[in-house]
Amino acid sequence: MPLTAKSLDAKTEKREVEESVQVVSIGSITLESGAILPEVDVVVETVGTLSTRTNNAVLVCHALTGDARAVGDMGNQGWWRGLIHSGGYVNTEEWFVITMNVLGGCSGTTGPTSINPETGEAYRSSFPYVSVRDMVHVQKRCLEILGIDSLHGIIGGSMGGMLVLEWGLLYPECVGRIIPIATASSLTPTAIAYNDIGRQAIVSDPAFKEGEYDANCPPVKGLAIARMMGMVTYRTNSLFEKRFSRALQEGIEENPSDSVFQIESYLRYQGKKLAERFDANSYLTLLKAMDTHDIGRGRGGVKAALAQLRCPILVIGIQEDILFPIHQQREIYKLVQHRDENQLLEVSSEYGHDAFLLEFDEIGPAIQKFLS
Amino acid sequence: MPLTAKSLDAKTEKREVEESVQVVSIGSITLESGAILPEVDVVVETVGTLSTRTNNAVLVCHALTGDARAVGDMGNQGWWRGLIHSGGYVNTEEWFVITMNVLGGCSGTTGPTSINPETGEAYRSSFPYVSVRDMVHVQKRCLEILGIDSLHGIIGGSMGGMLVLEWGLLYPECVGRIIPIATASSLTPTAIAYNDIGRQAIVSDPAFKEGEYDANCPPVKGLAIARMMGMVTYRTNSLFEKRFSRALQEGIEENPSDSVFQIESYLRYQGKKLAERFDANSYLTLLKAMDTHDIGRGRGGVKAALAQLRCPILVIGIQEDILFPIHQQREIYKLVQHRDENQLLEVSSEYGHDAFLLEFDEIGPAIQKFLS
Repeated sequence: MPLTAKSLDAKTEKREVEESVQVVSIGSITLESGAILPEVDVVVETVGTLSTRTNNAVLVCHALTGDARAVGDMGNQGWWRGLIHSGGYVNTEEWFVITMNVLGGCSGTTGPTSINPETGEAYRSSFPYVSVRDMVHVQKRCLEILGIDSLHGIIGGSMGGMLVLEWGLLYPECVGRIIPIATASSLTPTAIAYNDIGRQAIVSDPAFKEGEYDANCPPVKGLAIARMMGMVTYRTNSLFEKRFSRALQEGIEENPSDSVFQIESYLRYQGKKLAERFDANSYLTLLKAMDTHDIGRGRGGVKAALAQLRCPILVIGIQEDILFPIHQQREIYKLVQHRDENQLLEVSSEYGHDAFLLEFDEIGPAIQKFLS
Repeated sequence: MPLTAKSLDAKTEKREVEESVQVVSIGSITLESGAILPEVDVVVETVGTLSTRTNNAVLVCHALTGDARAVGDMGNQGWWRGLIHSGGYVNTEEWFVITMNVLGGCSGTTGPTSINPETGEAYRSSFPYVSVRDMVHVQKRCLEILGIDSLHGIIGGSMGGMLVLEWGLLYPECVGRIIPIATASSLTPTAIAYNDIGRQAIVSDPAFKEGEYDANCPPVKGLAIARMMGMVTYRTNSLFEKRFSRALQEGIEENPSDSVFQIESYLRYQGKKLAERFDANSYLTLLKAMDTHDIGRGRGGVKAALAQLRCPILVIGIQEDILFPIHQQREIYKLVQHRDENQLLEVSSEYGHDAFLLEFDEIGPAIQKFLS
């Protein structure tokens, strides 16, 4: 019997692997800076079944505004569901996929919106500086509590890719293979500049109140501008040309000074949308973690650090990426210890940086093959 | 006697052609929108001597934050003095160089900070929308009053290049030859997006007060962010790598969360500096003029408009320019009526867009030759 759309749906439905989301308390941690967070919770999504030999775990690391819902469920699909699902490029019938919201985030893991047990109030601006390495240490502790001692693979894009590289250097004995995507050993000065434009927009918003804003009255305008800044660097002009060109938003073309281009209304909408769901202090915490991240710190520089990386690596870069330029991906590939399994995949996409969140058929097959 | 440094200085001093700055009242003008400005003043710098046959006038058009002081004097050098001076690539002993602050500007020509004669108060937010074509019409009227009926050449970069192209289309009978540099027939959606990030930063600043701010209490924070946004697009990452790399500003490295990268302090300083000298309403007026500028409007599109351009043209583009990408310069060159004298000069510079303000030895010889 040929498969109809309906029977295919039914089949997919039946095969669907259930997502589980839990909060794991990992107790107190001491940060790289020496600051101590007395109680840290980590929100974790797991999809699939951990094999009895616990050798099929794949860790996923999210980007700046991502969260632990990489896969999600049918009703609320995660940000990487196109890549990871039952029968997908990362097949959840084969792999036990774990995603955690990072330390300093605002989607369930301890961060600036969490209650400081010592004061009974939200940390807000008193939340300490956290590094990408701190984020990785927290993930490691969480995995230990979950009884997972080794990871078959680790995969992540953008800020997530920074965690992926750090995992390979901080816990080489636990890591099978890694897939950093559209990321960097350290940010370019231009990327730091983009981040600072967003930062200045947030801290200049009078609603920010030096980070002591009320949760009901957050600095949405500043955060929206920061997101607009981000969005322009996540995409490309070719895409904007194709989608919007110089078209005006309908209905307000009477007076040229009131004219709004579609690209403008699109970005303003994206800014507003993020500002409604994301915490500004958390955004600042993660920006600073990215800016200050340098895998070469304390390891004799980037070159020496990458030479220490021993596990097989699949580096994926996007040629049109203006935030994490392709030369940074080539550098990572070139400087790690040579292994026949290592691979550099260069994808061309008018989505630019965001291709790692959208171009599943471009990046998926290589990921599938490299994991298997 | 061989020339010593001193005698050379003395010689230069002697040869120096004096700058003259004057304000020309051109009366009332009706804008493209139909709005009327009852009294318009234009500040004009002239350097050199107008020939008796009045056939040696060269008009210079400035960019977004430029002004009429293109040449300036020895004590206060203008923004294009490296190109234009006695004995320079644009030789003020040969050419009579005229530069005007544009309509809507804030450096002497009528704009939002000017007094509206009908109210006795500054226009501020009530200053009407002006187009690039309006700016050109005002320049034309001003030149008529100065007794200059024809221009040997017109030269300008960035927004100035938009005026240059419009001159060639609006007043072909008055224009000898034109040199648009690092400019566009119309902005890309990405350039519009960059402008809107700056715009949102300005209008979100509470000091902006919907444009009705007091001159003593302007929205400096918002304007500074807009300038930071601009600066990143005016330069290149290669330049930032070379100048700042990931170096931290000295003296504040104790706590990573307080760390400020040199690229950040540089941009913040540039932002602050512009905010102290430029008017926010004027900035918004000029951004909107640029966004809405389209040489194809009312002329059957860009292709048809460029095909109408009859005068010889030297198009100069910078390969690393991310704001006015090189493909826009190539398009202009390709679509204008073919003439043997036409030329496309592609310059490679790590200054990116700002090369037109800095790389005089790269762009100067071609300009000199094309004008002669």
